[in-house]
Amino acid sequence: MTDIHDLTRRLQKPSDSKIVLYVGDGLGGLPLQPGGKTELETANTPHLDALAQRGVLGMSIPVLPGIAPGSGPGHLGLFGYDPLKYDIGRGVLEALGIDFELTDRDVAVRGNFCTVDAAGIITDRRAGRISSDIAAKLCEKLDRITIPGVEVFVRHVKEYRLVIVIRGDGLGGNVNDTDPQRTGAAPLTPKGSDAASQKTAAILEQFMKQAAEVLKNDAPANLLTMRGIAKMPPIPRFQEVYGTRAAAIAVYPMYRGLARLVGMDVLDAGATLDDQMKCLEQNWSSYDFFFIHFKYTDSTGEDGNFQAKVQRTEELDSAVPRMMALKPDVFIVTGDHSTPAKMKSHSGHPVPTMLVSEICRFDGSKSFGESACRVGELGIFEAKYLMLQALSHAGRLEKYGA
Amino acid sequence: MTDIHDLTRRLQKPSDSKIVLYVGDGLGGLPLQPGGKTELETANTPHLDALAQRGVLGMSIPVLPGIAPGSGPGHLGLFGYDPLKYDIGRGVLEALGIDFELTDRDVAVRGNFCTVDAAGIITDRRAGRISSDIAAKLCEKLDRITIPGVEVFVRHVKEYRLVIVIRGDGLGGNVNDTDPQRTGAAPLTPKGSDAASQKTAAILEQFMKQAAEVLKNDAPANLLTMRGIAKMPPIPRFQEVYGTRAAAIAVYPMYRGLARLVGMDVLDAGATLDDQMKCLEQNWSSYDFFFIHFKYTDSTGEDGNFQAKVQRTEELDSAVPRMMALKPDVFIVTGDHSTPAKMKSHSGHPVPTMLVSEICRFDGSKSFGESACRVGELGIFEAKYLMLQALSHAGRLEKYGA
Repeated sequence: MTDIHDLTRRLQKPSDSKIVLYVGDGLGGLPLQPGGKTELETANTPHLDALAQRGVLGMSIPVLPGIAPGSGPGHLGLFGYDPLKYDIGRGVLEALGIDFELTDRDVAVRGNFCTVDAAGIITDRRAGRISSDIAAKLCEKLDRITIPGVEVFVRHVKEYRLVIVIRGDGLGGNVNDTDPQRTGAAPLTPKGSDAASQKTAAILEQFMKQAAEVLKNDAPANLLTMRGIAKMPPIPRFQEVYGTRAAAIAVYPMYRGLARLVGMDVLDAGATLDDQMKCLEQNWSSYDFFFIHFKYTDSTGEDGNFQAKVQRTEELDSAVPRMMALKPDVFIVTGDHSTPAKMKSHSGHPVPTMLVSEICRFDGSKSFGESACRVGELGIFEAKYLMLQALSHAGRLEKYGA
Repeated sequence: MTDIHDLTRRLQKPSDSKIVLYVGDGLGGLPLQPGGKTELETANTPHLDALAQRGVLGMSIPVLPGIAPGSGPGHLGLFGYDPLKYDIGRGVLEALGIDFELTDRDVAVRGNFCTVDAAGIITDRRAGRISSDIAAKLCEKLDRITIPGVEVFVRHVKEYRLVIVIRGDGLGGNVNDTDPQRTGAAPLTPKGSDAASQKTAAILEQFMKQAAEVLKNDAPANLLTMRGIAKMPPIPRFQEVYGTRAAAIAVYPMYRGLARLVGMDVLDAGATLDDQMKCLEQNWSSYDFFFIHFKYTDSTGEDGNFQAKVQRTEELDSAVPRMMALKPDVFIVTGDHSTPAKMKSHSGHPVPTMLVSEICRFDGSKSFGESACRVGELGIFEAKYLMLQALSHAGRLEKYGA
């Protein structure tokens, strides 16, 4: 028995305890020079620092040492799903993120509107970053495409991005991206690497022919490329493996989709952290587990804006008292990965993590930051084990063995 | 997908960055008494200490906690190959170390010349440590042995040591050592534990009969024992799994053989560290990855000479400026295992490790030694993950998942 969920299924223990998982996306950072402080260490975070004195700290490895994860594997790890075992395609994530209810007969595809010239060569991979208004209308046109034997759904996501879902029997998800990843080339032909995926590829090729006709007068969005073609993998649901009623309070589609993928209820909050806190307060009695996602520590890191990330980290801190006022039995602050402003990208550095509960073995930490986390009680651990710590500190696991 | 190399194959990212892996064999040590310093901590290592202030430290576990590895598994781990998965026989290592080009039809055997009395009982397991000159000539005689159905190669290694290679179809490598590991006993009979290996054993028995005849007048080297009988396991090559052009600059055959096993080019340098540095400088533009092996931290440890190991550690340090002058993107110093002078042997203690790059999350270390490594940013990690950190810090890995 090495599967985490075989263990949690066996050890689940009913409890009224409540767990809050507060995720600062891309929370981990880097100092700008030797001896310097990270974004988190630079930020003035009095509430998190106070909690560090009555919690335990550690460093989370999202996937494996050094591996920078995307948002999908980063969050799956935090939810206790081995991100190397559950490999979720981008198309699936995009579809989940716009509340599209995927079935196991579906292949989901992320589409990008692009501009092609008369010879079919891509001149702009994002179709001049067309507005959402225009793109949404184009998606409605594409949604009318029909292909015998399957159902076709086309949904707009944001700006030049869309989702295509093919629903039918015997469709495989192992099809290459058609985005050539550069301008000056034509979109690639979809090809399947097994019989079921060849069937999918043939359908996508038909779709592309019709799409070219539908969009021919819609330059700059006169074609599209396809990426992350994938089926939804079988993934056990949160309630089944952990015995918790779980809710997600996330603003961005991707994270709502990830939460839905593992069976959380996705609550409707407004777009601000204040809205998210109101939503948490209103739903406090209805769930045992809350995943609260804060995006801006990542986006400012991606922008390479150290100071902005510091400010967003302070914003992250500011919501802590409202959550603690609800008296969660376990309160966790972590990130799905590091996004150092210095690198302007996700990185493979481990992620500062704090867990607060009544049964913490205090580790003498005075503040919440990378340096303190490095030597904390939680150690440097693989993210997939965080849920075990959460459940354990919440009194939700029986002991293993007699 | 849990195999490290499935992951690195998928995430490989082309780059011009360069990585130097500087291995002080048996680098880790022990203090001679409680509160004392290890060999590394006692040594005056100003260059390594300076790097510690702009790199990250950690402790490498070669195989599993407490397990003392031989040179083979120790190095395979550093190269990113799980040493429990890739189990390389000693015969294979010896053959590779003398530039013998093994094929997958070969069984390689390490031989030791020994002395037997008239009753066939071993009286000296190393044949009076005969000179290389004499032993080389005896190997030439043995190389003329022929056995129907297979090819036989006998090559001298050093002093009383030789390699025997049997080339043929359907040969297995699971045959016991014939060295009884003590004097006063006759060499054991080779026996195979499966059909293919029984075939090998029968051939080796024929070889031994002929060898006894060939050597009968060559006392003290009037027979030989066989150890480490093995086939070369299929092992993926460095360039394929990591996308790097890799070169090894190692003086001793064993380490050259290990590097060749994983597909590194083995460069010809002279015998001194100065020669190795010249070789590195001359080949800097031709490779992305350099493995540089320094033997003497191990051999002095094996001798139980604490002070000599300290001095050799200082020699290890002295070459650092020449390597750093080449501006590697990632510079790693580590060992393949610990060899504490106090124990006069390889040990299972974790191994001090340092990684220096532009994107290190500095861990406040002031010097390079076991105590600092214990609380460094790299944590206490399995050696097989070191290559992930190397590639990641060199910008040679895409992120995992969307």
